[in-house]
Formats: sequence, C-alpha cells, structure tokens
Amino acid sequence: MHFTSDPRPGDGIVERDFTLGEIPGILWTPERVSAPVPLILLGHPGGLGRMHARLEARARQAAADGFAAATIELPGGGDRPRLRNLEAARADLRRALEAGEQVSADTLDRLVLPLVERAVPEWQTALDALLALPEIGGPVAYSGGVISIGVRLAVVEPRIVAAGLFAGSFVPRAMFDEARRVTIPLHVLLQWDDEGNDRQAALDLFDAFGSREKSLHANMGGHTGVPAFAGEDAARFFARHLR
Amino acid sequence: MHFTSDPRPGDGIVERDFTLGEIPGILWTPERVSAPVPLILLGHPGGLGRMHARLEARARQAAADGFAAATIELPGGGDRPRLRNLEAARADLRRALEAGEQVSADTLDRLVLPLVERAVPEWQTALDALLALPEIGGPVAYSGGVISIGVRLAVVEPRIVAAGLFAGSFVPRAMFDEARRVTIPLHVLLQWDDEGNDRQAALDLFDAFGSREKSLHANMGGHTGVPAFAGEDAARFFARHLR
Repeated sequence: MHFTSDPRPGDGIVERDFTLGEIPGILWTPERVSAPVPLILLGHPGGLGRMHARLEARARQAAADGFAAATIELPGGGDRPRLRNLEAARADLRRALEAGEQVSADTLDRLVLPLVERAVPEWQTALDALLALPEIGGPVAYSGGVISIGVRLAVVEPRIVAAGLFAGSFVPRAMFDEARRVTIPLHVLLQWDDEGNDRQAALDLFDAFGSREKSLHANMGGHTGVPAFAGEDAARFFARHLR
Repeated sequence: MHFTSDPRPGDGIVERDFTLGEIPGILWTPERVSAPVPLILLGHPGGLGRMHARLEARARQAAADGFAAATIELPGGGDRPRLRNLEAARADLRRALEAGEQVSADTLDRLVLPLVERAVPEWQTALDALLALPEIGGPVAYSGGVISIGVRLAVVEPRIVAAGLFAGSFVPRAMFDEARRVTIPLHVLLQWDDEGNDRQAALDLFDAFGSREKSLHANMGGHTGVPAFAGEDAARFFARHLR
C-alpha cells in the first residue's frame, strides 16, 4: 500500500489517495485521532472519480462518529483496465432494460458473479493493509452497494462485524443461498421506487439473510434519492456496532 | 375532560388520569415545561391497564424529546362496556386463526371498520380537549397500533401532521383505498416475523400510502419484540416533524 497524495485536510477529515498494487483507493481519517479507530469499508458501483462526492459525504459522516473510511476501485471500474466479459454482460443488461425485457438469470450471473469473485479478495487485501496502519484499529464494517459483494464479504471475512447494504443492484440467484449464511447484524436500505431495481427481489433477499439482527429501511425516491435521515439512521447502526 | 387522579410525577414525567365523558384516558407531560409543547397521541390495541407499562415507556421517550403524550381507551376495550358485534368478530377471528384458516374479508370488516368508525371521533374529541390545556400546543402526531385507526385519523384530522404506524394488525380492504388519500409523513414499523400478521398485506398497505415521505422499518422478532433501536428511530421521526 502506497500513499500517492499528500494528506488533504478539510473540515474535520483527512483524505489520502493510495494504490494497492494496481488498484487505486482512498482513505479518510478523522482529523483528530488519539487511539486507533474503527473502519468502514465504503462499497460503490465502480468509478471512484464519478462517485467521489458521494463517497466523501459518507466518509465525513463516519469521521464525525470517530471512524476511518476507505474504498478501492472495483475491478474494471474507473481507470482500471476494462474487463471484456463484464462489459459484454453490461451491454446485455442495457439491451434488456431498453427493450423492457426481464433481465435473464444468465446475464445477471455474468454481470455480478465474476465481479464478486475478483473484488472480494481485493477488499480483503485492502483490509490487511489498512489494519496495518497505526491509526486504524477495528472493528470493521462494510457499507454500501454492489450488495452481492457485501454479502460475500459478510460470509467469508470474519473481521467484518456489521454491514449496511444498499439493495439497489441486481442479484444473481446464487447469492440468495449465500445470504442464508450471513449472521452479522445487517442494515439494509431499499429505495422503494428505485427504477433500476427489482423490489420483490430485494425483499426476498432481506428475508433470506440468516442474521438475527437485520433491519430493512425502505424510503421513497429513486436510486440516488436516499433521504438525509436514512443516512443518519445508517450512521447510528454503524455507531452501535463499531463503538 | 376531568382529571381523576393527582399528578403522579416520576423521573422527568408527570402522569395524570382523566375521563372524557365515559372514556378513560391518560396524559403524560414533561416535568419541566416552559412553553406549550407538541403532542403525540398514543394508539394501542385496547386495554389501558394491560398496555400501561408499554404506553408509559413511549410517553417517557416523548417527554425526553419535549413532547406531551396522551391516550384514551378504545371502544369496547379495558373497563369500557363490551361491544357485542366486535366480540363476535373477535371470536370469528380466533376460530379462523386456531383452525389455521385464512381470515375472511367479512370478519376483517366486522372486526375493524366499526372500531374505526367509533374510535376516530373519540380521538378527535380528546384532541379538542387536550389542545385546550395551557401546557399543550401542537403540532400533533399519532403513534401506534390499530393501524386502520391511524390511517383514518391521518385522512380526516388536519391537526395531525405526522404518524408513526405499527403494521401489526389486520387491515380490511377498504382501508387500502383510504391509505392512498394519506399525504402526511409516515414512519411504518413492521415486525418481519410477526406471527399474528400478514407481511404481504403490510407491504401492500405501505405501497398504497399516498405520502411523499414514507419510511418502512422492518425488524426481526415477533409482535412485541420491537428492538430498542427501532423505538429510537421512531422517536427521531417524531422529533423531526414536531419540533
């Protein structure tokens, strides 16, 4: 892990770019840190540049609660080399959505499963590096999108003690079986009128999770219309499990 | 409205019994009140004695946020005269549940609609009396159960500006049409594994509400197993709309 930028301090939070091999990432830490702090891994749909403002807002909330936050670029996302099979699956998804057709199970599998396979070990490597920093202790939570990546991480990564998941992406059938094996506390956000989402699939996935503590918070508005109070409820979920 | 008990102060809150004609009720006010305070009407399934501890806990949260809270006995509930038709409908409900049968639409109508017809004007009369007290100002919210009563109040009573509803009771089909006419902000609690509840009906009702701001918070546990953090989320909803 190499820091590639000077720390950018600003209003209670310090932002630093890093690379982990070929993978770019960003680390945010609270400006005033006396002891090692808990960490929230910020998931996203890919494209750190495009997502920066929204990720920074979530990191700022984490810092206000005394937590560090970090993210890495997704395989095939942002400036990373395109993945040909993923791009082909994306094109198939777009075609189906534009034609108003049901997205096929095959397309979903090709779109999500290889991404999960590649991204999860990268997140784990990032976690190794982040936890080796003197200012970061634990515990660790995962927050955000590509819900299938969050599900897999919750199953395979024992250092993650809680997850806030955004039920806003397509989920292959195989992930429903995996969801049954999740046992950590979950906070699931669902945008009830999300135009790019299958509401019933999101409810089915919530039902499938094996966790004894799981909450579903459904709100109005489209994919990017999560109300501010929903973000605050999620922040309290993380504070409850990371402090 | 006649107060029938001395004020019972205790730990930041003052409790007073009252009667409104033949209807018993309870008013809780914060111990230290300088200006008229907002009011939360506490709904419940009937039986003030049986429900007292849970109602008092909700009133205590309201008082901590600076709000008064009040409740009245339901028609046919607690020490009020039994309503023969309601008791007959309840017996039919019990028979259906014990036999593992679907509760018929007719039973639901006979169980809930007459209760709504009787209870809502009583709540409105109570509201008149409560708002005439010098220590109570407004705005007013409705909180709690018999969701059909909350829905009707939200439609017909303009003094109610927000409602926190517990999706834990049976809902006649007619209430779904009424739900479309609700426009105030809603916070709906659903116990995902509520043994005495129809989850799909609760989701359908949430979908039907016409409100631009509506949130569904689903949690694990049975009918009475609402986790403490869900109560705190609901309290923040009321604080957002009553302050």
